[in-house]
Amino acid sequence: MDYEQRSVDIRTKSGGQIYTGLKAELSTQEDLATYYSPGIAGPCRVIATDPQRSKELTQRRNTVAVISDGSAVLGLGNIGPTAALPVMEGKCMLLKHFADVDGVPIVLDTQDTDEIIETITRLAPSFGGINLEDIAAPRCFEIEAALSERLDIPVFHDDQHGTAIVVLAALENALKVVGKDKTKIKVVIVGAGAAGIAIAQLLSDWGVVNLTLVDSKGVVSCDRADLHQSKLNFCSVKTGDLESALIGSDVFVGVSKPELLNTEMIQAMAEKAIIFALSNPNPEIRPETALAAGAAVVATGRSDYPNQINNVLVFPGIFRGLLDAGATTVNTQIKLAAAAALAGLVTNPTTDKIVPSPLQAGVSDVIATAVAQNV
Amino acid sequence: MDYEQRSVDIRTKSGGQIYTGLKAELSTQEDLATYYSPGIAGPCRVIATDPQRSKELTQRRNTVAVISDGSAVLGLGNIGPTAALPVMEGKCMLLKHFADVDGVPIVLDTQDTDEIIETITRLAPSFGGINLEDIAAPRCFEIEAALSERLDIPVFHDDQHGTAIVVLAALENALKVVGKDKTKIKVVIVGAGAAGIAIAQLLSDWGVVNLTLVDSKGVVSCDRADLHQSKLNFCSVKTGDLESALIGSDVFVGVSKPELLNTEMIQAMAEKAIIFALSNPNPEIRPETALAAGAAVVATGRSDYPNQINNVLVFPGIFRGLLDAGATTVNTQIKLAAAAALAGLVTNPTTDKIVPSPLQAGVSDVIATAVAQNV
Repeated sequence: MDYEQRSVDIRTKSGGQIYTGLKAELSTQEDLATYYSPGIAGPCRVIATDPQRSKELTQRRNTVAVISDGSAVLGLGNIGPTAALPVMEGKCMLLKHFADVDGVPIVLDTQDTDEIIETITRLAPSFGGINLEDIAAPRCFEIEAALSERLDIPVFHDDQHGTAIVVLAALENALKVVGKDKTKIKVVIVGAGAAGIAIAQLLSDWGVVNLTLVDSKGVVSCDRADLHQSKLNFCSVKTGDLESALIGSDVFVGVSKPELLNTEMIQAMAEKAIIFALSNPNPEIRPETALAAGAAVVATGRSDYPNQINNVLVFPGIFRGLLDAGATTVNTQIKLAAAAALAGLVTNPTTDKIVPSPLQAGVSDVIATAVAQNV
Repeated sequence: MDYEQRSVDIRTKSGGQIYTGLKAELSTQEDLATYYSPGIAGPCRVIATDPQRSKELTQRRNTVAVISDGSAVLGLGNIGPTAALPVMEGKCMLLKHFADVDGVPIVLDTQDTDEIIETITRLAPSFGGINLEDIAAPRCFEIEAALSERLDIPVFHDDQHGTAIVVLAALENALKVVGKDKTKIKVVIVGAGAAGIAIAQLLSDWGVVNLTLVDSKGVVSCDRADLHQSKLNFCSVKTGDLESALIGSDVFVGVSKPELLNTEMIQAMAEKAIIFALSNPNPEIRPETALAAGAAVVATGRSDYPNQINNVLVFPGIFRGLLDAGATTVNTQIKLAAAAALAGLVTNPTTDKIVPSPLQAGVSDVIATAVAQNV
């Protein structure tokens, strides 16, 4: 099936994928007077007196803006805001379908860090949360940090933390399958963009000690002169290339590019290697090749193999929980709790089942509850 | 009925008045692949090649942002963005109900003219049109002018032009009732804010020659030193107060404050005076008082009297027509055509019926057609 063409065809007929629904009828003069003038002055007056009540009396109670500058869209790269809009709309569909969160797709005609921060700050009184989407690294780190600091609503960059949470849940279960201890494993993360850095951070927060980050120039060594602060946080005393980094390691996490990994590299890893080849749609290595080379557990981003690492397992439930609990920020505890809750949904992890299917019912409820308990 | 309390009660139960609806189901892996990854890359690629197709393939085809800075909300004044959000939501309900336009309520945490222009410019790739709402004069004029100049989507400040279009339609029919000629009437407009200035402009564009603008300091005379450019455009060689301005005039249009007009003033006007007392909810004069004083036709903003001048007659159809025709701007011809179409919906105007009821079916279709024909 040519999904891309199908998506274009559907949109040629119907435009965008979402619409503005009304929670009430407007049939009578009385309806108009209630839902618009003069009745609408009532909630305005209440909020003018107590601004916090906007989170109860308006769309802020259940609405998240999905915002991008179009600088790092899917595998397409920097295609700009206008071309990124379909992805934001799709994301809003997922928020609604999986967690009954109302989403508003917004793309910004700027790729300047300060301007993005400034613009989203000005939009904040309209929404109950902000989902940052498809914003290039390292800009995305600064934007998220500044907004989290400034705003009293939660800000979540899904490409970072959604990915990291699913990876952590998958890793937790994969370690059960192979019988290894998180404090003793050697993990190599390839790709030091938004996802790679966030994965390194969350695995580290969880208790993984031995982490090696690899980018297009090889191991991210602390003595390299070209490192952005985001990479410096995870730099290594080691040097070398991906091949040398992998020798004796237990876990490969790839958020990089297709066909990066080969049979020899996997054979050089420790026994019962775990391979997360997440480059999408073409992974760093084909699962069948990785398994043939001796890997014990393999996951990809693809729906046509077992163990699909897909953000949709996480972000709808995250926002459901944040909104329900009135969270003002997203802390580490929340992310760890979401990962643990997701991992817990697979009662007996096996080689072929370390995470739930994206379509499994009830996933977002479980995540939401875990999140809300940790706000 | 206490509509304000009712509105608060409903929102206490349900939050905002609108939600994000999905145009398709997401039940299967195939749905996910079509509406999100990997299919969503299809429309992204098409738009990256030809950005104009975003107006066909995304929410831009049918979505208008309703944007305010909260500086001039209803009769409540400058209550700020957070407290203004309910009005934006209500407006989005009206857009959807009357013209099937999807609305996105947005309030901005700034009241600086340049920052508002800048912010909306950055948001523009997300939407098919911009409805400016409840922004104070004279700031609103500059904002609308700058955005209309910069953006390739239509920008419409409803408090200005929506009001002006309904007033013009009502005036056209009122003149039929009293048998007067637009080129010969003397019109006095009281209130020189967003609505007053826009009414003066549109009546002038329509062919009214003798227009006197009055603000809180009296007649807007050209020799006054305090005049903003928006008032200078309609300043008068005359001086004096409202009372003197009204002597011998044919039409009073009030967009000012309650109880400004009295029996003596109306008696000093020409025969068969037309009184539009639009201060809401309390008009410049009660209709029964105006009629007793000898006025021939009276209109207000209230639903409990005949001749309700209500923007909802116009703005939904305006945006329907603009979106359908792919308009990039809103010109004078469009506004005049909308007013003529609205006036034409009343086939035999009488003292008690110069405009349709806001709930009359089909109004927005007629307006939309007229607008689209003049794009």
